[in-house]
Amino acid sequence: MNLGGVDVERLIAQVAEELASRVERGQPGGLPAGGPAGAPPWCGLCTEVGRCATVCGTRVGDIVAAGACRVEGAPGMGPVPDDISGMIDHTLLKAEATRDQVRTLCAEAAKFQFASVCVNPFWVPFCAGLLAGHGVPVCTVVGFPLGASPSSVKAAEAAQAVRDGAGEVDMVLNVGAMKSGMTDVVEADVRAVRAACPAGVVLKVIFETCYLTDREIIAACEISQRAGADFVKTSTGFGSGGATAGHIALMRRVVGPAMGVKASGGIRDAATAEMMVAAGATRIGASASVKIVDKMPDLGGGGAAAKASGTPSSGGGGLY
Amino acid sequence: MNLGGVDVERLIAQVAEELASRVERGQPGGLPAGGPAGAPPWCGLCTEVGRCATVCGTRVGDIVAAGACRVEGAPGMGPVPDDISGMIDHTLLKAEATRDQVRTLCAEAAKFQFASVCVNPFWVPFCAGLLAGHGVPVCTVVGFPLGASPSSVKAAEAAQAVRDGAGEVDMVLNVGAMKSGMTDVVEADVRAVRAACPAGVVLKVIFETCYLTDREIIAACEISQRAGADFVKTSTGFGSGGATAGHIALMRRVVGPAMGVKASGGIRDAATAEMMVAAGATRIGASASVKIVDKMPDLGGGGAAAKASGTPSSGGGGLY
Repeated sequence: MNLGGVDVERLIAQVAEELASRVERGQPGGLPAGGPAGAPPWCGLCTEVGRCATVCGTRVGDIVAAGACRVEGAPGMGPVPDDISGMIDHTLLKAEATRDQVRTLCAEAAKFQFASVCVNPFWVPFCAGLLAGHGVPVCTVVGFPLGASPSSVKAAEAAQAVRDGAGEVDMVLNVGAMKSGMTDVVEADVRAVRAACPAGVVLKVIFETCYLTDREIIAACEISQRAGADFVKTSTGFGSGGATAGHIALMRRVVGPAMGVKASGGIRDAATAEMMVAAGATRIGASASVKIVDKMPDLGGGGAAAKASGTPSSGGGGLY
Repeated sequence: MNLGGVDVERLIAQVAEELASRVERGQPGGLPAGGPAGAPPWCGLCTEVGRCATVCGTRVGDIVAAGACRVEGAPGMGPVPDDISGMIDHTLLKAEATRDQVRTLCAEAAKFQFASVCVNPFWVPFCAGLLAGHGVPVCTVVGFPLGASPSSVKAAEAAQAVRDGAGEVDMVLNVGAMKSGMTDVVEADVRAVRAACPAGVVLKVIFETCYLTDREIIAACEISQRAGADFVKTSTGFGSGGATAGHIALMRRVVGPAMGVKASGGIRDAATAEMMVAAGATRIGASASVKIVDKMPDLGGGGAAAKASGTPSSGGGGLY
């Protein structure tokens, strides 16, 4: 069709291409929003739910600046400064994760001395065996990602994980009970898991903040603190959204400086990681941590990769 | 801008609107694909993962015609014929589901005599109490949705659910073990849960087919059948994709006519439900089943709603 000298078909194709490009770049495209309330309009089209740190680095920088001391990353993220590697929870929670992928995760964690590896409970014994003597604890998840198991089952899962070698447990709050105003049930649930974990085991409580109101987040913070948890954490990565700077600031304000706050979401590039360090972050959780430190020399040397290559005997080379 | 007589801004707005509409209707829009391999190009933009029956009714019709005897639906689906209501697993598995929403689910199931209510394990005692004497069993999920808990934990979760009143258990296969070729582990896992469920309890095994090869789906069918499961089921609704007609046909072919096959995904309209009945479906799982039968009179009466209103004493009115 030619309309007044304009090739309309070509124009339409160009507009469609521009829209597609905007979607790929994470820019608003004028398409219908379907994300969580308050999210930018392109969140509904973004398939990287829970990986906001990767897709929207600047926004995640704000989150860390707001008080997060652990932030989750995702595979494929770029290099981070040396002093960040010890703050990373190196994470792989996909249902379809294979034994080889879990083995690689452990090797990477040992090599770069990440804060922990975080895997589903089935893989805890395997990881504990691989990481013995490498100075990297195994973190696992309980009631993950829906948080809707009975407390007795969550406690049994946590106890089994600890027996299997887990040193850190990330439990999911009973979100549905919280949404129903059943705060006694929520607190008893955290207490049951805390009781199943010896004192030395780090317990984090995942809120799935995307589903909670500010009032519920405040209550969840107070409950977690009263019940003896060590960290509060925003998201599972399986909900409708990840951390926001507002939620992190709120959580930090409620729990004070002594408790950990972990923002969940992928971190795949050095820029984001550096923003976190600059902002005062003390811990980062990431699935993709390998690529971060592998690319460290690109930042001018002195990074974790260089450090690790200088200490192969204490690294994870033997695990590959 | 006016280009040769054409209002370009208006044209761009119209094209964007058309693209948005195509995305909503599940039609290809020329936007970049990001869905699972083999999925149509718009799957990557569709936010209704696991609800293909709602978004893509015709494709789901193909799935049922291929041999599915249970298909999951989602809230908001429209009316279905009378003889379908008894085939519906009335499902609510969202982390943020509230007690009131679960109560409504039970009332609807009792009123329309759905095949079961399917809820997260925390809600089983609540549902069992509400549904006592109403002829609707409580179905729950185990190792859901990642399937990556140790067998002992899955078995404990199933046993607790049965003690709490569950009559049906939908367990998730150890997907990661299957992807790692650890078929012995996968079979032992199903057997452990089967052993935890008395003979009268219906056991379904969810494969999360979106992550499996055809060879792995065949192995999972054989394992499930050998281990004494009653149903094989495609998806959790939390993975990267839902059922496909090809997978359903494959599963039906492997397990034969005596075992149940359930396709997971939302069913929200009567047309889809009618297609299923016409195709020979014997069971449908749905979260949104209420709206289905509530709108039955629109189909000319004689539907489940009419039937239910004629038998209030055995219905769920008292549960609302």
